[in-house]
Amino acid sequence: MGDHLTTHDLLARVEELIGDELEQAERVFLNEVNSKHPYVHDVLQHITRFQGKRLRPILLLLSAAASGGIKESHFVLASVVEMIHLATLVHDDVLDDALIRRHVATVNARWNNETSVLVGDFLFTHAFHLTASLGDARACRLIGRATNLVCEGELAQIYERGNLDLSESQYLEIINGKTAELCAISTQLGAMYSDADEKMIQAMDDYGRALGVAFQITDDLLDLLGTEEQMGKSLGSDLQKEKLTLPLIRLLSQSRQEDQIAIQEILSQPDQQTKSKLDQFIKNSDAIEYAANRARDFAIKARESLKGCPPSQAKQILEELTEFAIQRSI
Amino acid sequence: MGDHLTTHDLLARVEELIGDELEQAERVFLNEVNSKHPYVHDVLQHITRFQGKRLRPILLLLSAAASGGIKESHFVLASVVEMIHLATLVHDDVLDDALIRRHVATVNARWNNETSVLVGDFLFTHAFHLTASLGDARACRLIGRATNLVCEGELAQIYERGNLDLSESQYLEIINGKTAELCAISTQLGAMYSDADEKMIQAMDDYGRALGVAFQITDDLLDLLGTEEQMGKSLGSDLQKEKLTLPLIRLLSQSRQEDQIAIQEILSQPDQQTKSKLDQFIKNSDAIEYAANRARDFAIKARESLKGCPPSQAKQILEELTEFAIQRSI
Repeated sequence: MGDHLTTHDLLARVEELIGDELEQAERVFLNEVNSKHPYVHDVLQHITRFQGKRLRPILLLLSAAASGGIKESHFVLASVVEMIHLATLVHDDVLDDALIRRHVATVNARWNNETSVLVGDFLFTHAFHLTASLGDARACRLIGRATNLVCEGELAQIYERGNLDLSESQYLEIINGKTAELCAISTQLGAMYSDADEKMIQAMDDYGRALGVAFQITDDLLDLLGTEEQMGKSLGSDLQKEKLTLPLIRLLSQSRQEDQIAIQEILSQPDQQTKSKLDQFIKNSDAIEYAANRARDFAIKARESLKGCPPSQAKQILEELTEFAIQRSI
Repeated sequence: MGDHLTTHDLLARVEELIGDELEQAERVFLNEVNSKHPYVHDVLQHITRFQGKRLRPILLLLSAAASGGIKESHFVLASVVEMIHLATLVHDDVLDDALIRRHVATVNARWNNETSVLVGDFLFTHAFHLTASLGDARACRLIGRATNLVCEGELAQIYERGNLDLSESQYLEIINGKTAELCAISTQLGAMYSDADEKMIQAMDDYGRALGVAFQITDDLLDLLGTEEQMGKSLGSDLQKEKLTLPLIRLLSQSRQEDQIAIQEILSQPDQQTKSKLDQFIKNSDAIEYAANRARDFAIKARESLKGCPPSQAKQILEELTEFAIQRSI
């Protein structure tokens, strides 16, 4: 895997290969994220500023291109997965009391929690309506199921908050729902609607799922190690919300009993100093390295899922995305 | 219209005519409102206690029975509309900071706001998945669109909060979205899936919509006039949230300018005494009578929509429901 790959290079290659198709999907998206009510319209416009690298539309279109070619229905589906992603972000910001997202005010900060809850619902329901416009109940079933599993994963995470005995497998199950599911449905639908065979659809599903897990482990590492300035969003919220992530699970499992007690004490009474209090413990452990290696394991698994996929530029970028998932600093 | 019809009598007749079918729909519902995560399961179990008269499943099954007969798909659809209704209730309770619902604690009161937001999302997404299980994109499209309009109506209501110049037509547009849409989709789907013709489907849509408006106007009257003990839920929240409802819109529009100023003053600084401060103004006006008459107008409109529907017991109960919508005290 090329160590010198930069985000900029990768996105430039995505742009070169599927720039026009991404733009078409974006047009569908912007056309749909709309309302005759001026207030709803304003809030929706604001939300479009949360869009980042459009990872899920990119995954959907690349997996389509790698499987059999991009069709009209892919523009709609790419718009749908982006809409669902934004819906979960808006609701996440309510859950986390977050104030900034991609350097702009969250909906709850700029308007209020009520608006956030309802506009998230608006995006979810609109995504379902848009999916149904394809006239194929198969996509509706898959989108319905995937979003349901996302919610279930997030609910499980809420419940496990403060559970300092959370195991690695429980952690993986949670992020499999809350993050990997939507990546997996993107790559699965990409393949399915380019008329790929069952084997290819399954391979793309596996790819998206493993990639999503690699992404989330890396995200959790960045929440612990990054700065808000770098990331453009509120950080350290995992610690504040007593969400145990992989580096901390590893740290606890590898510590001597007396350190374990001290760390649990710090974690169970979160404040602004939690991060710095944990610093020495983390430095003396393999917690960061271990989590980074686990992310790498999933990135490799994602790459290997593509083995049976015929060579193409799209496949090559999908492979490179597995590296991007774990080496990005932003 | 029979003035002596009681809720008890009406529900007994519903039970007699479609009791078995309601039970089948309820079995689908309970089977679906489920999760392998014990925590999610517990919250979902709690939410089933918010179920009331199951108005929307009743409307769906009665309109099916009146249009061409109840089929298997109706049990699924009846379960879907109930699930969506519960999702909106759970999110409404977050928006309203409500503590009790049908004499039991709300999800936000018993657990927390985060759980409420996510479990509402869980119910929405599950409803879509369940709809898609019918294998017909038509139902997905209609359910997607209707729920989207519900959210838009609720968002418009949030925005208009504190607007003391809200007109009757703006008010009607809001409740058309937030309440009537889900009743209309219930009766429309009831007819559509019993293979009724376009004319009958439209008639059932009109019926459900007008009935929903009559219900909501009555609900708003009860929020102003009822007691929490009677209603089993937090009341007076419209006043506290500065939501202008029909009796107050009428009161303001018919008051002398000096009274208008005094009423607006009271409404714009809500406290525990708001209701009693308004009491004299309301008693000296036709506000309550006017709103009750408007509710009756919509009830009559609903009844008239059924004109072309062939005679049946189901039709008769649908007609009686229009009376129930406006005369209920609970």
